[in-house]
Amino acid sequence: MRIEKFAVQSLNKIKDQSPLIHNITNFVVMNSTANILLAIGASPVMAHSLEEVEEMTALANALVLNIGTLQPDWLEAMIVAAKTANKLNIPVILDPVGAGATKFRTHAVQTIMQESRITVLRGNASEVLSIGSTAIRTRGVDSTLTISNGMIDTVRQMALDYQCTIAMSGAVDFITDGQRIFRVKNGHPLMGRVTGVGCGLTAVTGAFCAVSDADPVINVTAAAAFYGLCGELAAQMSKQPGSFYVSFIDQHDATGEAEIEEFIKVEEC
Amino acid sequence: MRIEKFAVQSLNKIKDQSPLIHNITNFVVMNSTANILLAIGASPVMAHSLEEVEEMTALANALVLNIGTLQPDWLEAMIVAAKTANKLNIPVILDPVGAGATKFRTHAVQTIMQESRITVLRGNASEVLSIGSTAIRTRGVDSTLTISNGMIDTVRQMALDYQCTIAMSGAVDFITDGQRIFRVKNGHPLMGRVTGVGCGLTAVTGAFCAVSDADPVINVTAAAAFYGLCGELAAQMSKQPGSFYVSFIDQHDATGEAEIEEFIKVEEC
Amino acid sequence: MRIEKFAVQSLNKIKDQSPLIHNITNFVVMNSTANILLAIGASPVMAHSLEEVEEMTALANALVLNIGTLQPDWLEAMIVAAKTANKLNIPVILDPVGAGATKFRTHAVQTIMQESRITVLRGNASEVLSIGSTAIRTRGVDSTLTISNGMIDTVRQMALDYQCTIAMSGAVDFITDGQRIFRVKNGHPLMGRVTGVGCGLTAVTGAFCAVSDADPVINVTAAAAFYGLCGELAAQMSKQPGSFYVSFIDQHDATGEAEIEEFIKVEEC
Repeated sequence: MRIEKFAVQSLNKIKDQSPLIHNITNFVVMNSTANILLAIGASPVMAHSLEEVEEMTALANALVLNIGTLQPDWLEAMIVAAKTANKLNIPVILDPVGAGATKFRTHAVQTIMQESRITVLRGNASEVLSIGSTAIRTRGVDSTLTISNGMIDTVRQMALDYQCTIAMSGAVDFITDGQRIFRVKNGHPLMGRVTGVGCGLTAVTGAFCAVSDADPVINVTAAAAFYGLCGELAAQMSKQPGSFYVSFIDQHDATGEAEIEEFIKVEEC
Repeated sequence: MRIEKFAVQSLNKIKDQSPLIHNITNFVVMNSTANILLAIGASPVMAHSLEEVEEMTALANALVLNIGTLQPDWLEAMIVAAKTANKLNIPVILDPVGAGATKFRTHAVQTIMQESRITVLRGNASEVLSIGSTAIRTRGVDSTLTISNGMIDTVRQMALDYQCTIAMSGAVDFITDGQRIFRVKNGHPLMGRVTGVGCGLTAVTGAFCAVSDADPVINVTAAAAFYGLCGELAAQMSKQPGSFYVSFIDQHDATGEAEIEEFIKVEEC
Repeated sequence: MRIEKFAVQSLNKIKDQSPLIHNITNFVVMNSTANILLAIGASPVMAHSLEEVEEMTALANALVLNIGTLQPDWLEAMIVAAKTANKLNIPVILDPVGAGATKFRTHAVQTIMQESRITVLRGNASEVLSIGSTAIRTRGVDSTLTISNGMIDTVRQMALDYQCTIAMSGAVDFITDGQRIFRVKNGHPLMGRVTGVGCGLTAVTGAFCAVSDADPVINVTAAAAFYGLCGELAAQMSKQPGSFYVSFIDQHDATGEAEIEEFIKVEEC
């Protein structure tokens, strides 16, 4: 199926089924993540206590983990939640926010990926590559790297090693499960001027995975293209970050088949 | 006094007195809750440490407890704060976010209500009913139930048992103290498309209770009708969730006597 | 150099260098703080775990501490981060949110200021003065005081004692390092109707300090004047708090040399 048609189908399923997305995420983006998920028709819930994560994950259609503002007890809860999701075949999406900036964050991602099976890893280039190499450093939550061809080979190998799909976000997004590689050109620089936009894509990816049994690499590509398109359309409405964010949320509700058919820019490499 | 006139009077008192509302609430909605309270003229403060909750509650005109993103030490702080409020006759409003989804949340609400005196409990139908029956399950933070007449009898009995006012939110809100029952028809479906809107009503209810010695059932009804009306008026300005939220905040400041007199839809059953 | 020219220069440096601002701040304002910093071109990161604060601060160009929603382990992390910043000559900006409301908050500020060297303290009148006198009480996070001349003498002495710059915010802001005193008249009452606006100024102050070796009193004055001007310009676009906030974020991106040259209202006393 063409990716455009697939994306439209998934969005319709999200609206119809309102999948429950269990987020264990950072304090900065909890509000925006919930609003982005609600805007596409999903149902977000945030819960991080060891006392309840198993039960909450068991109710959910996808689990989204995000290590921004991480602390040790939250990491423990993430691992319990991920193991629960694995047992129940619920997709797990991991956002390694700031991996490569501190050893705590890099190790946290490595631990989660060793102790559980991650369906999708989505981050910027230094976050993703720092997981495999201590030579890569992230500046806070900003990538220090521009995506290159050599990197893509490395990430493809990582995807094979971890048996997951990896989405590496940048001016162009690369998405690979080790076999196939997709390049998504949708997006707009204003998306980097608002907090939580990367984290929002991770959550939207969770919603796409929640409603479809297609290969994760297809779900992730469709999610990234749709999300980037929302950013492009919002940037046509607003050139400054405050009003851009408002339009961006609106576009998650407004963007439909017509825009997706016309403007999605995805290619398989 | 007619509920319209009462609501206007309470809003004027909130603007004049700027009641201090102490919130121990969830991470997702702290920002929006503060902004909603500020927009009506109240003064929000968030504090959850055992080291300071007693002192902070003692300064406040209402205490708002909300168990979204709960963890055990926050529950402990909520109980200490509630007991302090009870001692000082400060109204306590409880939002049982996600009760019925996990045992931790359901038990948390039961514990708070056993260990302290709650003035108002406000939640959706499954959250409220799960407190009395383990057969009721909540899907994350979404109600699994549509309000029915049988439910209203159950909730009336709960209100008598706990000696509190219960507001059960839905397409129509039901509010009862066990004696009187009010039905509020103000509101708009877009209110369910933005995170923190239910939680915001709980906080606004706190502000209404803070400035009036009327029966809580009257304060809660006035708050719910005003709040639903803000949603309706905002939905006239914006049809999508991002801009709807902005208008919704604006309406808390803009909505006054004229709109309240004309559009409030409350009836006593 | 005139303060107008200095402010423009600093803003250009922030856009060019994208200084990394490490925030250990409260849950209510994390999102708005990140967005305000992004809107001026800085790069925010939030991290509070003892496991990583040293490493994160060492990467940063300024450290911003904010005690709203404080808890003991966060206080410990703030002190470790501040000591790290001191060792590396990274400026430390402290926002004493709610100092004077509870002993926990007042003591926390005193402890941070005793155990480390703070570059800038920025708060409202009761927050600032409560640090030196137990007679001063804060109402939640609202000042109970209007700035008077006597106060300014007290604050000047505090600045000398603590060897820091103090910014006392109100209808007019006073900024002093004990030697020089600046008065900033930019600002708008709507800034008090949105949560996190004071905290946002603290963060912006961090960004100004991060890119300039000028006397902190100059950096703080330039930051406060620019920030107040963004509020004034936003208030020309929107009269209600929801849309005002959106415009306020936009103005951090849109306000440039022309507006700063024409509208900055700063005087040295």
